[in-house]
Amino acid sequence: MCEECDKPQDGQEQLYRLRHSLAHIMAEAVLELRPNAKLAFGPPVEFGFYYDFDFGGEPLGEADLPEIEKRMELILRKNAPFERSEMPLAEALAWFEERGETYKAEYARELVETGKAGGGSLSFYTSGGFTDMCEGPHLERTGQVPRGCFKLDRISGSYWRGDEKRPMLTRIYALAFASKDELKDYIARRKLAMERDHRKLGDELDLFIQDADVGVGFPLWMPHGTVLRDELEKWAKEEEFLAGFQRVTTPSVARGALYLRSGHLPYYKDSMFPPMLVDENDEYYLRPMNCPHHHKVYAARPRSYRELPLRLAEYGNDFRYEKHGSLSGLLRVRAMTMNDAHIYCTPEQVEGEFHSVIQMYQKYYAHLRLGNFRVRLSLHDPDSDKFVADHNAWEQSETAVRQVLHNLGVAYEEERGEAAFYGPKVDIQIKNLMGREETVSTCQLDFVMAERFDLTYADRDGQRKRPYILHRAPLSTHERMISFLIEFYGGAFPTWMAPVQVRIVPVSADFAPYAAELQERLCGDFFRVETDDSEESFNKKIRNAVTRKIPNVWVVGAKEMEDRTVTWRRYCVKEQVTVAFDRAFDALKDMRAARAMDNFADTALPLG
Amino acid sequence: MCEECDKPQDGQEQLYRLRHSLAHIMAEAVLELRPNAKLAFGPPVEFGFYYDFDFGGEPLGEADLPEIEKRMELILRKNAPFERSEMPLAEALAWFEERGETYKAEYARELVETGKAGGGSLSFYTSGGFTDMCEGPHLERTGQVPRGCFKLDRISGSYWRGDEKRPMLTRIYALAFASKDELKDYIARRKLAMERDHRKLGDELDLFIQDADVGVGFPLWMPHGTVLRDELEKWAKEEEFLAGFQRVTTPSVARGALYLRSGHLPYYKDSMFPPMLVDENDEYYLRPMNCPHHHKVYAARPRSYRELPLRLAEYGNDFRYEKHGSLSGLLRVRAMTMNDAHIYCTPEQVEGEFHSVIQMYQKYYAHLRLGNFRVRLSLHDPDSDKFVADHNAWEQSETAVRQVLHNLGVAYEEERGEAAFYGPKVDIQIKNLMGREETVSTCQLDFVMAERFDLTYADRDGQRKRPYILHRAPLSTHERMISFLIEFYGGAFPTWMAPVQVRIVPVSADFAPYAAELQERLCGDFFRVETDDSEESFNKKIRNAVTRKIPNVWVVGAKEMEDRTVTWRRYCVKEQVTVAFDRAFDALKDMRAARAMDNFADTALPLG
Repeated sequence: MCEECDKPQDGQEQLYRLRHSLAHIMAEAVLELRPNAKLAFGPPVEFGFYYDFDFGGEPLGEADLPEIEKRMELILRKNAPFERSEMPLAEALAWFEERGETYKAEYARELVETGKAGGGSLSFYTSGGFTDMCEGPHLERTGQVPRGCFKLDRISGSYWRGDEKRPMLTRIYALAFASKDELKDYIARRKLAMERDHRKLGDELDLFIQDADVGVGFPLWMPHGTVLRDELEKWAKEEEFLAGFQRVTTPSVARGALYLRSGHLPYYKDSMFPPMLVDENDEYYLRPMNCPHHHKVYAARPRSYRELPLRLAEYGNDFRYEKHGSLSGLLRVRAMTMNDAHIYCTPEQVEGEFHSVIQMYQKYYAHLRLGNFRVRLSLHDPDSDKFVADHNAWEQSETAVRQVLHNLGVAYEEERGEAAFYGPKVDIQIKNLMGREETVSTCQLDFVMAERFDLTYADRDGQRKRPYILHRAPLSTHERMISFLIEFYGGAFPTWMAPVQVRIVPVSADFAPYAAELQERLCGDFFRVETDDSEESFNKKIRNAVTRKIPNVWVVGAKEMEDRTVTWRRYCVKEQVTVAFDRAFDALKDMRAARAMDNFADTALPLG
Repeated sequence: MCEECDKPQDGQEQLYRLRHSLAHIMAEAVLELRPNAKLAFGPPVEFGFYYDFDFGGEPLGEADLPEIEKRMELILRKNAPFERSEMPLAEALAWFEERGETYKAEYARELVETGKAGGGSLSFYTSGGFTDMCEGPHLERTGQVPRGCFKLDRISGSYWRGDEKRPMLTRIYALAFASKDELKDYIARRKLAMERDHRKLGDELDLFIQDADVGVGFPLWMPHGTVLRDELEKWAKEEEFLAGFQRVTTPSVARGALYLRSGHLPYYKDSMFPPMLVDENDEYYLRPMNCPHHHKVYAARPRSYRELPLRLAEYGNDFRYEKHGSLSGLLRVRAMTMNDAHIYCTPEQVEGEFHSVIQMYQKYYAHLRLGNFRVRLSLHDPDSDKFVADHNAWEQSETAVRQVLHNLGVAYEEERGEAAFYGPKVDIQIKNLMGREETVSTCQLDFVMAERFDLTYADRDGQRKRPYILHRAPLSTHERMISFLIEFYGGAFPTWMAPVQVRIVPVSADFAPYAAELQERLCGDFFRVETDDSEESFNKKIRNAVTRKIPNVWVVGAKEMEDRTVTWRRYCVKEQVTVAFDRAFDALKDMRAARAMDNFADTALPLG
């Protein structure tokens, strides 16, 4: 029994029992090594379990983990049963006191005082020589633990009850899965995820930094990272132009009056930065999203049905207050730039517009080769005060969106409580390499804001009517999308996005003039090119280009200079090819124009 | 004698005398019509003069201005001399009291009490039947006023001493210049300036709005205005790429720690928004400029002389606190986007970099046909605490910049007290149609920040040295630059910038399919095109296109559809020309690629 246990999810009970039982077995093994250790909490967690100990003056380090593992194996072989028992509080306290288990005693007292321990008696589990206060459930016997299914992982410090004023304990983390293969698979994925961690690659490839004086959660994009943003943005602007969107540019700040009108202040205040008081106590806020500004653009002119659908797009800069502790690389930030747009349309146009938006998503995702996503229909939670209270409108709009998804033949899952406060939404949920899921893109149907901002259009019949509003952000925020792309591509970007598109490597200084000529030609056509004129050996130069994950390396030596060719090596491909410079240049232009995904080995160079 | 008089500038004494004398003559004429009026202040001002009156229960309106003008002419013809006299305070007060001149009496008392009236006696000027307390100087005789050199302009309310708790007076404004021609010229320019006022055109052409809920000074750029920004930005990015700049993207917010380090908090706090307190009273500020963020980008990696000059560019979003009353259209705003860059270089590179920056300015200004500017060398003021206190550094850096300008052969004027707090700067000062001057572009030499941010580079000799920093913004902020361009072009933008580049006008609905085909071809190549399919008459359609200042109108009728041609009308040109569609399309692409200034009639279409 432990306050930090997540209760097992459906279908996960057996894994939960396994991890919970292994926590007891580990504690038993640890006590063999450190009989004076005091026990704290030891719950199952995602990927395994941990146990917190107070080792007093006899600390234990990561070097001791193999010994603990060995002893755990011995305990498992004994195949002892897990047996439940109960003790009244007084008896339990005496039992703890005898053993010096002050943490357990404190918690036992709390359980009884707060009524969490039913009937005032506490439940214990015993296996072999080890007994722990615990609510279960457990395996029946230790022998049911599959061979090789767990691994002690690491040791860290942890405050008792998470309170930094209480004692610092030692936490031993372990991985545990239903089988040895699953454990192996997890460890391999974790290794890959660590190698590809966007924070690590962001630093190695000089994509972005965070700075303590500027503030954590406010990333500064270095030149190479800015290229990634700019290329995504250019693409989005082209697609949106062709799809009939018009761009607006609105400020990242607004008076409180705007957010009172929109309802963000009651419903979204926790996620906003506090106001700045100017002009005799007028409140100005950093905006958390672009919508209210776009509604103001719509409202600025009388609108006619002839103008609808009016599609207003902006790569807008927004600011959200996230707790310091939850900030993480580019994934959770306080400043973000969003591929946003709002579509104002008639009721008859909703389905067609929704369709087009979903198609745009599909196009982006297919092109970027992002396959690991699911579609979620996010509904409101009638029991929460985080949603506008209008039962009928929720009913209607949720039905409408469900119908649209159905008509489009999109597979989706419904989830309560994930809607925006002003309407239901369709979310694209991507899993990262570690299986952690995040909302990347979203398309929302809004039945609230047209009323709040008094938005209307003159219909064919001369009547003023309220438009429907779709909110959509297929390419997410730059921060979140690029964090995924970095990890998914392992930092190796296709030529069109790559910070350095071509690195020219002259075999020796003799070929520097030819290299310079090529570089000038490419740069004059706005390609991002550099020449490696360092003193390094040829092989080192090639390795350096690979380390920087540059998609195209053009080697130039005597033969190339004489024939006016280049020898083209691709990042992901073993074979190299020697081609005329003019042909290579044309191929490069074609790749850029087509936004070819040449970071995947199955994409051929357009060399005819 | 009047507290609101600006003393005459050099070379302006005669004009000052003229305006000052006309103020007396106007007051004399007004008193003929309203003998009970009380006089307040009546100073010369830019473009003319005014006089404030308290008319009690006998108000006077703009309809009365012609009558006053007529009486002024009669007074002038009398050719009375202006004669100076003096009165001790007691005598003057009695004189005022007798006439009920309570405002003059109050001011006379103040002049004596504060010692501003030397020797305690007050100076008066008399011309004809009118005497006013006044320090002069004046013309010798009223007959010296040139014929037709003045015009009564308008009437407005004005509080006595500018204090809203004191009585509201009536102010009569008049225009006055050295000659009739100068007056005519001024009135014509003012008419043009009013027609071209960027706020008026911004509304008519749907370029930007301001919204009370968002806040004055935070413009929202409508789709058509956003095109102007995007096109300028695209141009700047291309020029900067070719000139070796690298782009960065940094947040518009930072912790107070950054601005303590930079010195903005002591030196620039008045122009910053107040902080937001988060994370247990940590202060976060909206940034007033991009420099400190760029310095952090520089500081994030160890730098070598091989990387210098390092040129970091960003169209950065900044926020400055301007007083509510000083906000004006796009010219004075609180949120702005700046064509900014910082160049980090060795001492030997300063002159060359400065040279290149000035050349880039010259290129932009020549291309945009902005001729009405002067170059100002802005120096610090040793008596002000608004500048970093380092006498030698100011001496050296001001000398260096002066030398650079000299070497480049640039004509410039020096001005004290206009430097940045961290170094001298070269400003490009543009005058608008009304002759009002604003700093548009700037290039600054910074000798402070490398030290404050501990910026270094490893030189050839292995020593760590401090880089010099140039701050430059040749295209200014979007807000300021576009406000000038709107007025300078009268809202008629060249094809490459124009919100709508081509409007296709079918002569009748019969030719709508051909129009639609052309529109699709153009839009597919990312041209901004619309077709006028309204029910209006052909002539009305043409007039509408002119009203919207659309640079190219393509008329398509029976002949054009049959021959696959278009009849091309330019905004600024009378002649029209009928050409094959393919040729017209190519010409349009050439104009866009060359950023042709076809809003000027001397720019020919590239039709071979």
